[in-house]
Amino acid sequence: VPSEPTTSEIGSHVDRLPTPAFLVDPARLASNIATLDSRIARLGVDLRPHVKTTKSPDIMRMATAAHSGSVAVSTLREAEYFFAAGFRHLLYAVTIAPDKLPRAAALAARGADLTLVADSEETALAIIGAQAQYGVTLPTLVEIDADGGRSGVAPDGDLLLAIAAILSAGSALRGVLCFVGRSYASATLEEIRSWGKIERDAAVGSALRLRAAGHDCSVVSVGCTPNAYLAQDLTGVTEVRAGVYLFQDLTMAKLGLCMIDEIAASVLATIIGHNPRGPWAIIDAGGLALSKDQGLANSIQEYGYGVVADVEGKPIGDLIVANVSQEHGLVTSPGGGLDFEEVPIGTKVRVYTNHVCMTAAAYDQYHVVRDGKIEHIWSRCNGW
Amino acid sequence: VPSEPTTSEIGSHVDRLPTPAFLVDPARLASNIATLDSRIARLGVDLRPHVKTTKSPDIMRMATAAHSGSVAVSTLREAEYFFAAGFRHLLYAVTIAPDKLPRAAALAARGADLTLVADSEETALAIIGAQAQYGVTLPTLVEIDADGGRSGVAPDGDLLLAIAAILSAGSALRGVLCFVGRSYASATLEEIRSWGKIERDAAVGSALRLRAAGHDCSVVSVGCTPNAYLAQDLTGVTEVRAGVYLFQDLTMAKLGLCMIDEIAASVLATIIGHNPRGPWAIIDAGGLALSKDQGLANSIQEYGYGVVADVEGKPIGDLIVANVSQEHGLVTSPGGGLDFEEVPIGTKVRVYTNHVCMTAAAYDQYHVVRDGKIEHIWSRCNGW
Repeated sequence: VPSEPTTSEIGSHVDRLPTPAFLVDPARLASNIATLDSRIARLGVDLRPHVKTTKSPDIMRMATAAHSGSVAVSTLREAEYFFAAGFRHLLYAVTIAPDKLPRAAALAARGADLTLVADSEETALAIIGAQAQYGVTLPTLVEIDADGGRSGVAPDGDLLLAIAAILSAGSALRGVLCFVGRSYASATLEEIRSWGKIERDAAVGSALRLRAAGHDCSVVSVGCTPNAYLAQDLTGVTEVRAGVYLFQDLTMAKLGLCMIDEIAASVLATIIGHNPRGPWAIIDAGGLALSKDQGLANSIQEYGYGVVADVEGKPIGDLIVANVSQEHGLVTSPGGGLDFEEVPIGTKVRVYTNHVCMTAAAYDQYHVVRDGKIEHIWSRCNGW
Repeated sequence: VPSEPTTSEIGSHVDRLPTPAFLVDPARLASNIATLDSRIARLGVDLRPHVKTTKSPDIMRMATAAHSGSVAVSTLREAEYFFAAGFRHLLYAVTIAPDKLPRAAALAARGADLTLVADSEETALAIIGAQAQYGVTLPTLVEIDADGGRSGVAPDGDLLLAIAAILSAGSALRGVLCFVGRSYASATLEEIRSWGKIERDAAVGSALRLRAAGHDCSVVSVGCTPNAYLAQDLTGVTEVRAGVYLFQDLTMAKLGLCMIDEIAASVLATIIGHNPRGPWAIIDAGGLALSKDQGLANSIQEYGYGVVADVEGKPIGDLIVANVSQEHGLVTSPGGGLDFEEVPIGTKVRVYTNHVCMTAAAYDQYHVVRDGKIEHIWSRCNGW
């Protein structure tokens, strides 16, 4: 890829950045970390931040500072990237495909404490086989399905014990992992909290069953940002996973878990046109730059693909990105208050998006902006 | 980013590829190119293929072989990348942000024939200013809005002539460009065809107005894949743009413009779990690997986030990816025919997705698979 001659962007004003660019507000980021840290501290468990949202070692060093240093990853690429950046305790929180085991074993052989996840006898057997073949330890958590939402085994079924027996026989069993994503479909904070209890009870109950059967179960891992935020009692749990809390996004705002002015990540865009036939202003950030994630069921009506703010990060009236194509975003005012003179061509705006994990994945670096100036450029990994 | 030791993948079986991976079927690709080429040849216009779908010089060399060699791009990154790959005639088919003009001028100064687009007096003035400042020619098309769909000026308004006058005075006016994206919202092929006629008439009518006012208008550029496919008469048009036709996708299938077995791009994934509580099989390709684009209004019910095929590319019953999270896809059978024994853990499947431009953007290379073996690895660009 050819690169145009560039001068260092550090210290320059955010207005000078080529758009679209992904901005991080370091004060909001620090505040989001402090907020969850203080909640987790009161619960007496470890926080294992999930790298999948930010995929940035700089950010994950901040996120793990008050904890054990363990992180969760969603791809082996992330595991390799974070191990190279100095993170040793890694949980690959997706049931591993059997043919990825040589790659996982290679990472373990290089010194990573890489924990895997299994929810089938086939996968458990493959893990045991890889341990023997490559001479490494691949500690594994059995995934529990508490809500019929995605993956995992029933907490009260025979399969849990069958998988545990396979892993135990190979000295690979380390514990259980549970993720209740249905929290995101909750209408109220109380509903989220009840899903969090279901998650905790399923994980802790499964751990008790394993121990009663004579197995090791030193790790009881639960969580997602909503459940981590609202937990009041995590007795029996050893660690909580969360990732979105670092940046926050419109989904978290819609759930009532943050305010828009706490969202630490936004996309910088430029007004490139005005169409009175909409009416809408047009920005140079579309489906690729913002993501086409529509957020929660009723988000698209309220927020479209993003809330439009000024270059300082303050929302401009009720402006939203009502529609996107690949490289265009159409900025409208649902209340009819769009004033082209307020957003002349060339104006920089920031857009807060529905699902920041998806948005951030379009970028390979973050521009960290404090008081309007670029303070750092942080790298992230992408792909698999 | 650390890379694991790898052997060359060329010649190896597709089954051996790490997943998720983006596969290209070169026979289908060649057929898709031939189909549109023969249609365009009968219309007597140039095809200016749009790189935004594939962003692959290897593919765009095939796509331009029967034409002038001109391409359209959607970002300046694409323009720079394709110029470095030997493409000289580039149309940046998005109205340019004024502060991107130095970068565009730098490319023109290096020898690119880079055509820009403007739909405001502000942008036209900025283009003229950049020409003078950097001593380059920045030929420009005025964008016409024929459907009130996105950007551009009304074909019958005063603004068209005002912008043309500014560009003409600076010897920058080259013609007009029109894009009618509402074709994608059509219920029938006839409706697409009628939008195509609206697009053509708006472009040709605008060109006549410019010429009547004494301006140069040598380029009359229209199109998107649906309009290019179904055009019957493009009198007055000089070039047609299209990008999706190269790969095709479920959106094009839903519109009736291709069959699923003509789609040349798919995501290779691995079955990593079975959850009888769904029931669903789980693949290691989620929202990042497939994209969360929901396609047309009623696509999500029929296709979910993708149609699941075997490793040869043949759809497996009615299996679809009904839901995704970041790295998980939930494979279901709407008709109740999901048989776990048919897709055991470790099975490779291919997924055809709703909107291939969005899916492809998650990858930096394509694995080209013929007769089950990796024949080539083609690179693409991403970002801005």
